[in-house]
Amino acid sequence: MAIITLTTDFGTRDWFVGSMKGVIAGIAPKARVIDLNHEIRPGDLWGGAFSLLCSYAFFPAGTIHVVVVDPGVGSARKAIAVRTSRYMFIGPDNGVLSWALRKERVLSTRALQNSEYFLKDVSQTFHGRDVFSPVAAHLARGVRLGDLGPALKVFVRLEWPDIKRTKGALEGQVVHIDRFGNAITNIPNPAGTVNKEMLCAFGAKQQHRVSYGASYSAVPRFKAVLVRGSTGYLEIAVNGGSAEKALRLKRGSPVRLNIGARPRRFGPQRKLPTVSAQMPRKRPRS
Amino acid sequence: MAIITLTTDFGTRDWFVGSMKGVIAGIAPKARVIDLNHEIRPGDLWGGAFSLLCSYAFFPAGTIHVVVVDPGVGSARKAIAVRTSRYMFIGPDNGVLSWALRKERVLSTRALQNSEYFLKDVSQTFHGRDVFSPVAAHLARGVRLGDLGPALKVFVRLEWPDIKRTKGALEGQVVHIDRFGNAITNIPNPAGTVNKEMLCAFGAKQQHRVSYGASYSAVPRFKAVLVRGSTGYLEIAVNGGSAEKALRLKRGSPVRLNIGARPRRFGPQRKLPTVSAQMPRKRPRS
Amino acid sequence: MAIITLTTDFGTRDWFVGSMKGVIAGIAPKARVIDLNHEIRPGDLWGGAFSLLCSYAFFPAGTIHVVVVDPGVGSARKAIAVRTSRYMFIGPDNGVLSWALRKERVLSTRALQNSEYFLKDVSQTFHGRDVFSPVAAHLARGVRLGDLGPALKVFVRLEWPDIKRTKGALEGQVVHIDRFGNAITNIPNPAGTVNKEMLCAFGAKQQHRVSYGASYSAVPRFKAVLVRGSTGYLEIAVNGGSAEKALRLKRGSPVRLNIGARPRRFGPQRKLPTVSAQMPRKRPRS
Repeated sequence: MAIITLTTDFGTRDWFVGSMKGVIAGIAPKARVIDLNHEIRPGDLWGGAFSLLCSYAFFPAGTIHVVVVDPGVGSARKAIAVRTSRYMFIGPDNGVLSWALRKERVLSTRALQNSEYFLKDVSQTFHGRDVFSPVAAHLARGVRLGDLGPALKVFVRLEWPDIKRTKGALEGQVVHIDRFGNAITNIPNPAGTVNKEMLCAFGAKQQHRVSYGASYSAVPRFKAVLVRGSTGYLEIAVNGGSAEKALRLKRGSPVRLNIGARPRRFGPQRKLPTVSAQMPRKRPRS
Repeated sequence: MAIITLTTDFGTRDWFVGSMKGVIAGIAPKARVIDLNHEIRPGDLWGGAFSLLCSYAFFPAGTIHVVVVDPGVGSARKAIAVRTSRYMFIGPDNGVLSWALRKERVLSTRALQNSEYFLKDVSQTFHGRDVFSPVAAHLARGVRLGDLGPALKVFVRLEWPDIKRTKGALEGQVVHIDRFGNAITNIPNPAGTVNKEMLCAFGAKQQHRVSYGASYSAVPRFKAVLVRGSTGYLEIAVNGGSAEKALRLKRGSPVRLNIGARPRRFGPQRKLPTVSAQMPRKRPRS
Repeated sequence: MAIITLTTDFGTRDWFVGSMKGVIAGIAPKARVIDLNHEIRPGDLWGGAFSLLCSYAFFPAGTIHVVVVDPGVGSARKAIAVRTSRYMFIGPDNGVLSWALRKERVLSTRALQNSEYFLKDVSQTFHGRDVFSPVAAHLARGVRLGDLGPALKVFVRLEWPDIKRTKGALEGQVVHIDRFGNAITNIPNPAGTVNKEMLCAFGAKQQHRVSYGASYSAVPRFKAVLVRGSTGYLEIAVNGGSAEKALRLKRGSPVRLNIGARPRRFGPQRKLPTVSAQMPRKRPRS
């Protein structure tokens, strides 16, 4: 019973996700489909990549992760399936898979070209239904990766926003605002305890100092706190409120963690070649 | 393992859909429930009918499609189950099933009257939970359609907004705005290539000319394009943006496709008798 | 095949719910997960408690209901599992389970302390994924409740907003506004017919009289009506519209049902000891 997860920017007000599930059910009736996230902002590759990064590893080995954030649907952009030592990833070759793949050992990448595994009539606007779903379902049924199309040596990678070390500090940024208004940064959770203050600066003027706490409620209600996030990255929160609103944080807001002379607490990050543009500061509006 | 799909206007902020699934799970533990769409605007029969039309056929034969957009719940409106050559449809007899049924060969229609297949206590406000879900679950378990109630000769049909042919043009309208702001029309995708311009006119004054492209990204970013839609109907989109916002399109906006003298490209549409009112221009606000 | 339901305030724009499902699928591949409600307002214990109250009993016996509305996550608040004669309930010990538990015969309550049944690394911000999901999955696989941690004699209860009887009337309040703008009160549906008027008063001045009807459409379009609600509580609705908007109702709005001299129609409510604060009038804004 293979598991297929779905991450898309399709939202829930149309029939798009349901149609994908219908297609999968027709091809692989025993596959189990789990919604990971359908509220990626339209075309927001970075939001999709980060959502996948934060969640994919909580699924059992063998899970097939399908990601359809695909502003170039119908164009010449490739579609790919990537096998890693633990999972399968399927999506457009636009970088949306790449932040998860940074953490994985990639074994094989294939271009989806064998139309035998697509729906008969492939639209130029909905490959989620016509290409990615049937391919995922066929893989769930045991079709071999190699049957899907030719091997690829590279796939498109989104640049990961690396943190910078400057005099006694780590400089990063907010990479995601969650439902609660918590601001998730790109600064990894430190090992051991932290008693340092994080400085959030955004725009030319505004600055806030936020102290570390063990949990959201380590500080009084409506006060800001810096916590180890469940994603593996430090997070700025407001107990019982929204850090996004209270501190006017948004994606791209610079953050600075004062770490003094403490060396190597955040270990060097593996740098991968990237072929893609900067993450836009602001998520596209839907 | 029967599949039951759910299309409702229940939204997701309450426990309504979850309760339906609980009822189904209690009666038919092996049935598989797939959400098709729960964001139909409250009482929007046309939105529900169109969502079902665009999605139902992507499910395997034997699927039971349940649609609960039911502003007349508790009144004298009938509830029906309809068997076609491929599917089963269940819902209130208010036309919400009728656009899908136009495409199907109807074999039998029954009024849901046998309360043996309802929950014991039927509320007058939530037949989704008390009538439609248990009936679907019983059908999934093998109850015969004929056991549900008496045969009906007719069911309520919503008028389908037919397109009109005028001097060298097809005149239609926008029937749905999707999550991306794409405007789906009621003009069927043509066979072969199109090189004609579509003219969108809305209100007395505003007019836009939109040219055909093979995909959303066939035009520069933020430009409008006319594409073959994945629903089978032509669609007006803006690459990387929202046609709804950029062109101020809404449901009911008139569109006009210049087709010159080319005859019969869009084949005559089968006309069914209708007993129901015009689609309102604007979707009800939720 | 155990059923696990999920009620959370996680919303759907992040990967939170998906991650919980991944964890459950890894531990109990055959368990069936059903979403009950993920749109509880952030930290709204009362909203979560009411949603659970209205829905839990529609699931088959043996269902495991997981509720994660957990503003104190990572603090010293307990986490509990409660077995009743029909169900299992899992959640933080903050009262969110308590309105459902008022209706159940509680057999055993345990504190979740045995970390053997948690994920290996437990974050201080996402116990839904790291504690509640794995515990639910282990229970679904047959782990005994007693293995989870020590027995508890009490759990936190939210005060239920009791109705008051005054000269010929029942005084209650609005406890929930649903998706349609219907205002659900805490006054139980009467047995038999009602022909009395309900008086809604909110603020110092505004008052509305609403008459009883058998269904939403018992009154003309856009008129208000008092109906027996599907939750077991009387409901104020507007046919084809929103009572919330038309009558400016909100959670906490006082309502008064004129019942004349009719005695005991609404039977005495069982009063349970409570240890928690008043329901706030207004739901927290997300």
